[in-house]
Amino acid sequence: MLEKIDLTKKLEKQSYREKMEALELELGRLQRECHAYKIPVMIVLEGFGASGKGVQIGKLIQALDPRGFRVHAITGETEEEQKYPFIRRFWIKTPENGKIAIYDTSWYRRVLADRFSGNTEKEELEDSYAAICSFEEQLTAGGTVMIKLFLAIDQKEQKKRFEKLLESKETAWRVSREDWEKNEKYDSYVRMIEEALQRTDTDYAPWTIVEATDRRFATVKIYTTVIEALKEAVAEKKAEAGREISQETEETETWENRELEESVLAKVDLTKSYTEKEYHKKKKKLQKKIRKLHGELYRRQIPVIIGFEGWDAGGKGGAIKRLTEKMDPRGFTVNTTAAPNDYEKAHHYLWRFWKNVPKKGHVAVYDRTWYGRVMVERIEGFCTKKEWQRAFKEINDMEAQFVQSGAIVLKFWMQIDKEEQRKRFEERQKNPEKQWKITEEDWRNRDKWDAYEEAVNEMLIRTSTPEAPWVIVEGNCKYYARIKVLEAVIEAIEKRLESR
Amino acid sequence: MLEKIDLTKKLEKQSYREKMEALELELGRLQRECHAYKIPVMIVLEGFGASGKGVQIGKLIQALDPRGFRVHAITGETEEEQKYPFIRRFWIKTPENGKIAIYDTSWYRRVLADRFSGNTEKEELEDSYAAICSFEEQLTAGGTVMIKLFLAIDQKEQKKRFEKLLESKETAWRVSREDWEKNEKYDSYVRMIEEALQRTDTDYAPWTIVEATDRRFATVKIYTTVIEALKEAVAEKKAEAGREISQETEETETWENRELEESVLAKVDLTKSYTEKEYHKKKKKLQKKIRKLHGELYRRQIPVIIGFEGWDAGGKGGAIKRLTEKMDPRGFTVNTTAAPNDYEKAHHYLWRFWKNVPKKGHVAVYDRTWYGRVMVERIEGFCTKKEWQRAFKEINDMEAQFVQSGAIVLKFWMQIDKEEQRKRFEERQKNPEKQWKITEEDWRNRDKWDAYEEAVNEMLIRTSTPEAPWVIVEGNCKYYARIKVLEAVIEAIEKRLESR
Repeated sequence: MLEKIDLTKKLEKQSYREKMEALELELGRLQRECHAYKIPVMIVLEGFGASGKGVQIGKLIQALDPRGFRVHAITGETEEEQKYPFIRRFWIKTPENGKIAIYDTSWYRRVLADRFSGNTEKEELEDSYAAICSFEEQLTAGGTVMIKLFLAIDQKEQKKRFEKLLESKETAWRVSREDWEKNEKYDSYVRMIEEALQRTDTDYAPWTIVEATDRRFATVKIYTTVIEALKEAVAEKKAEAGREISQETEETETWENRELEESVLAKVDLTKSYTEKEYHKKKKKLQKKIRKLHGELYRRQIPVIIGFEGWDAGGKGGAIKRLTEKMDPRGFTVNTTAAPNDYEKAHHYLWRFWKNVPKKGHVAVYDRTWYGRVMVERIEGFCTKKEWQRAFKEINDMEAQFVQSGAIVLKFWMQIDKEEQRKRFEERQKNPEKQWKITEEDWRNRDKWDAYEEAVNEMLIRTSTPEAPWVIVEGNCKYYARIKVLEAVIEAIEKRLESR
Repeated sequence: MLEKIDLTKKLEKQSYREKMEALELELGRLQRECHAYKIPVMIVLEGFGASGKGVQIGKLIQALDPRGFRVHAITGETEEEQKYPFIRRFWIKTPENGKIAIYDTSWYRRVLADRFSGNTEKEELEDSYAAICSFEEQLTAGGTVMIKLFLAIDQKEQKKRFEKLLESKETAWRVSREDWEKNEKYDSYVRMIEEALQRTDTDYAPWTIVEATDRRFATVKIYTTVIEALKEAVAEKKAEAGREISQETEETETWENRELEESVLAKVDLTKSYTEKEYHKKKKKLQKKIRKLHGELYRRQIPVIIGFEGWDAGGKGGAIKRLTEKMDPRGFTVNTTAAPNDYEKAHHYLWRFWKNVPKKGHVAVYDRTWYGRVMVERIEGFCTKKEWQRAFKEINDMEAQFVQSGAIVLKFWMQIDKEEQRKRFEERQKNPEKQWKITEEDWRNRDKWDAYEEAVNEMLIRTSTPEAPWVIVEGNCKYYARIKVLEAVIEAIEKRLESR
């Protein structure tokens, strides 16, 4: 979940001030509503050392009535606390109905800091995750709103901040030996974090990653996240009470969240390209290599799952063709995922994909995938909001099971811009041999570009995991895109073959 | 969950025939309704070898339209199936909407038979449980009704059945070497089963234990369980569709289930007693012993959690007094659980118990406990059906966490009969010193005896686990009850001290 985030995001002072004025008022109002409806709220701030958790809590409480919240700064267990089950100290710090509890680090210490330092032993890990999930599930089932924020900065930024803290005597004490160790072993700490985020990113208590390089950006994102969660909880309570949702709430519904989230796709550099000559030379070499690796996969009985998603006319078909062209046809299948037929509709939405899982040693390529649930089904309303929200974890769980059974899992997002899509659509309409590829529906989908962009962005962030990563392919130049796909597949296979 | 069941239950032929006639009609009708409402149904039959799974499936399908169901006999994985993630072969066998799939053993093989035989390795176990829970959660969230039945017989009965099968050539092949091994190592197999049942007894896919010594009894219980589950699913669909639930469904609502379930308490032998002299002699010895053990617990830093539940005037107070009388008062606390106060009500129902968990080396006794959720709160409607149904797993999870942190956990149910209760109530009213102990509410609760008995029975079965067992105390003779409590606590402590 940390893979696809963009840590360069920032916000100018002027824009920040304007936004904050409205956000603070809104949060204050929502706190009063939560109090009136007796909704307990838990806000968890986790994140890298020096990512600014303390500062952000300071900003957050500015908008709150001090009688209604409490900040819990969580440190290592005291000797007294060690005499109890570890989750007890958090149970007793749960807020009463209508109150807000804010946690500066939390029960996640158990699977993060305490695990890193060796205080949580390996054989305690499973029980710890079970206790954490049980804790969050029980509380949210009982009506608590659980907001979990993870503040991210990169290794370099963290080092810079540590060094700055060390410059002054007044702040130097805040950087511990362990902090440095985590900075040095940043990658291995990130692996722990990824595992923790994935295993606990549930529909009842989802994580939000906060890009925290720019303090102002982070503050606005935190406010926005908290506000949206509270708004939803209040709306539900009102609906339960049978009352109309007030106009006021409706109006502010969409907020700035889109603006905050847009960038995974926006940052893709679509000018990347190869000449025809470069392309052919590279292609030849790579296809030869993949043919060899394909045989090796079969000998080692490793299954491979490769999903393709992307904009209409994004180049999925062409990339799949070049990927599989020289492979032994007995060893791969290409599965095309269209709208489910009646028989498929009569089953769980993941059923048809379970049916097509490749067996050991085989490669399965999917032209469109199970991610339809969180794109077209979400946008067209073919499933409920609850259903697509739940789907992120369901899909992550499924892919994790593929990985556990030994599979290599890769997902490609074929990115083009709107202008390029228009060109390709028009070309298809002019060319009699390609006319079948373009329908009225393609044009209609194009009108929903922004909605798709928002959905895709959330999908990329929530479902890119170290074991089953998304690869974003710069697709305006088809040559470039096809080579990138070949290279990524080869890299993933080689990595696996080396490691086991 | 197997601890408190009564394997002597049986049903006479005449009574069986009468019941079955109605049950078969009802099941047939419900199958048609599920088909009309497009509800997919999965019925899992697990159980000991020779417990009669095949026979019961034969009985079950007699009532069903053959076009609407399919039986899957699950055996070990084929070589082909081993090439996929283990859960795949079950995903592809899920029923389409409106159809019923019946499984003669199931995905639970992975954590039962295959684990016993060593085919599931230790490090695969956690992933297997995660895959199973994810599978069931995803399907039920998608609308599937999941009915899980576990057929139980005891070691002796199983041996008898195996021997009978061996007598004839036609059936001898059905008893394998592994079957015998499971019979010989019955206890260790039961531990695996207990773990599997507990970890997967969820509100969305709960287990029902079927006492299978008597074939007829088991058939009726299976029919009743399936009928109730389908009825509930159909009623929900109807409610969703905004229609009234038909009178027909309402009328048959309560069925015979109570009759089938009553016996945990009904079988308790309340004539057990000690004379005053026996009592004093035993008490003195046991209290001396417990004092010694209490010190040892402190030295070894082992916490102890002892819960008391039982009928009003069942003798909880007296037993607690004798249990703690000679203990060092610095090392134990007695927590009385009354109706929650306003502050407690403003929290999750388990919060106040987490607060009072004993620390290492201490003994905490609870006069009434967290089980109020599934007794008084259930019966008085202080929580919703969904809430108390969920509570069984929530409570098991909490107690499992106590056990993981090193605690000894014991729960006593103080059983008296209705006549004895009347005598004690009247005595309290006559005796000025005891009048405070009896209120109008006690008499009102007494009127709900049958409802409580049903709730208590379900509670004892669902929450008695090997690590946190219920001990049913025959309480008509107070002397007997107090001695039994002392003995049980001593036994549990000694067992722990020996084992670690």
